[in-house]
Amino acid sequence: MIPEINPEALRNHKGIVANPNCSTAVALMGIWPLHRRFGLKRLILATYQSVTGAGTEGEKELEAQVLAHAKGAELPRRVFPRQIAFNVIPQVDAFGANGYTGEETKMMLESRKIMGLPQLPVSATCVRVPVVRAHSVAVSAEFERPVSVAEAREAVSSFPGAELVDDPSRGEYPTPLDFSGKVKCGVGRIRVDTAFPNGLSFWVSGDNLWKGAALNAVQVAELMVREGMLVPRNALAAV
Amino acid sequence: MIPEINPEALRNHKGIVANPNCSTAVALMGIWPLHRRFGLKRLILATYQSVTGAGTEGEKELEAQVLAHAKGAELPRRVFPRQIAFNVIPQVDAFGANGYTGEETKMMLESRKIMGLPQLPVSATCVRVPVVRAHSVAVSAEFERPVSVAEAREAVSSFPGAELVDDPSRGEYPTPLDFSGKVKCGVGRIRVDTAFPNGLSFWVSGDNLWKGAALNAVQVAELMVREGMLVPRNALAAV
Repeated sequence: MIPEINPEALRNHKGIVANPNCSTAVALMGIWPLHRRFGLKRLILATYQSVTGAGTEGEKELEAQVLAHAKGAELPRRVFPRQIAFNVIPQVDAFGANGYTGEETKMMLESRKIMGLPQLPVSATCVRVPVVRAHSVAVSAEFERPVSVAEAREAVSSFPGAELVDDPSRGEYPTPLDFSGKVKCGVGRIRVDTAFPNGLSFWVSGDNLWKGAALNAVQVAELMVREGMLVPRNALAAV
Repeated sequence: MIPEINPEALRNHKGIVANPNCSTAVALMGIWPLHRRFGLKRLILATYQSVTGAGTEGEKELEAQVLAHAKGAELPRRVFPRQIAFNVIPQVDAFGANGYTGEETKMMLESRKIMGLPQLPVSATCVRVPVVRAHSVAVSAEFERPVSVAEAREAVSSFPGAELVDDPSRGEYPTPLDFSGKVKCGVGRIRVDTAFPNGLSFWVSGDNLWKGAALNAVQVAELMVREGMLVPRNALAAV
């Protein structure tokens, strides 16, 4: 069984524990078990992010636009930089000086930090899509060691954060709709990446409100309790 | 000015001229001018493909699902392998034995063929999104020579197939809605790719019904007339 990503980071931690960016948390549920097996060398990410990543207001805006369309009325716009119904927007968060958005920069820096690979070459394109809930990520990853799809599937299956949904012959792969409200993130479409000597392409869909936010915070707290890092306040009084 | 992609291929051609795959045609409007400038070495593609790529029936299905949602009715499904409204589907075309779909394999083979780079490493993930018209592609490209964003923008500007829409500071980039019904494909979000030594990331949105299909066929025919490869039938009779 492939262990949780970095419990040792938590063990040695003092102070506030930050919850990761939602797209990063979802993507890593596929990337981490494959890194453990094959050794990550390079990462190219393209996201398909739901409107709830922008909060309740994002969800309301998509719904309002769709309802206006159904009535033949003009589509209202307030939250997103462009119309989101019937469109995709290649901007999540504000632009930095290097042309990457905040979300894209987070995916690079947080992937490196969480996996303990400070030099890992990563590039991301983050895109908002008219989906209510659950983010998806298309991943192309280059590895140090030779890869195989069978071994990759085995690695993903044995990782607690992921559910393997990967049978192209039966049309089985994860979609955001299938993984809305699910604890685990769906990983599928695993194939040898034709652009790299030792590469894998794959697809991850995961709930941005669960794994991308609240659930992950609970999982961090659970781990801290299990490791004896968090104790009830009245236990302190007894010392 | 950067020339059309491969007029010489047409000049030496005998027989039927095939029109390329729609996603490939759109993506290449950004890729080709950058290849001419920097020398392409590797290509990673993730698509955001509209429902009209599946014909009128695709468009009807998205509309029917959205209208059913507005009425609180059950969403009908017939054309796409999953619900497309409020979802994204990482499957366009049927799966091959290597785990790639037909659409993904076309993007590899046709990119190589059209640009005359038979060994080019390419990998693609093709995804259907709830957009009516115009396909978009997130591109990560590695090049032989050092890159710069200023030079890349200049190369795209000077290519007749592309319209540069790229000013992050003013929130300017192409979206499928902006490029529905447009002759040129929009290229933007050009930035140095942080995953490669000489890499560029960028975004292309283009009309799959125009550049991806009918318009491209007309452009091929126009070129053939201009080059004297096509002549009116009555000109033949006069010979």
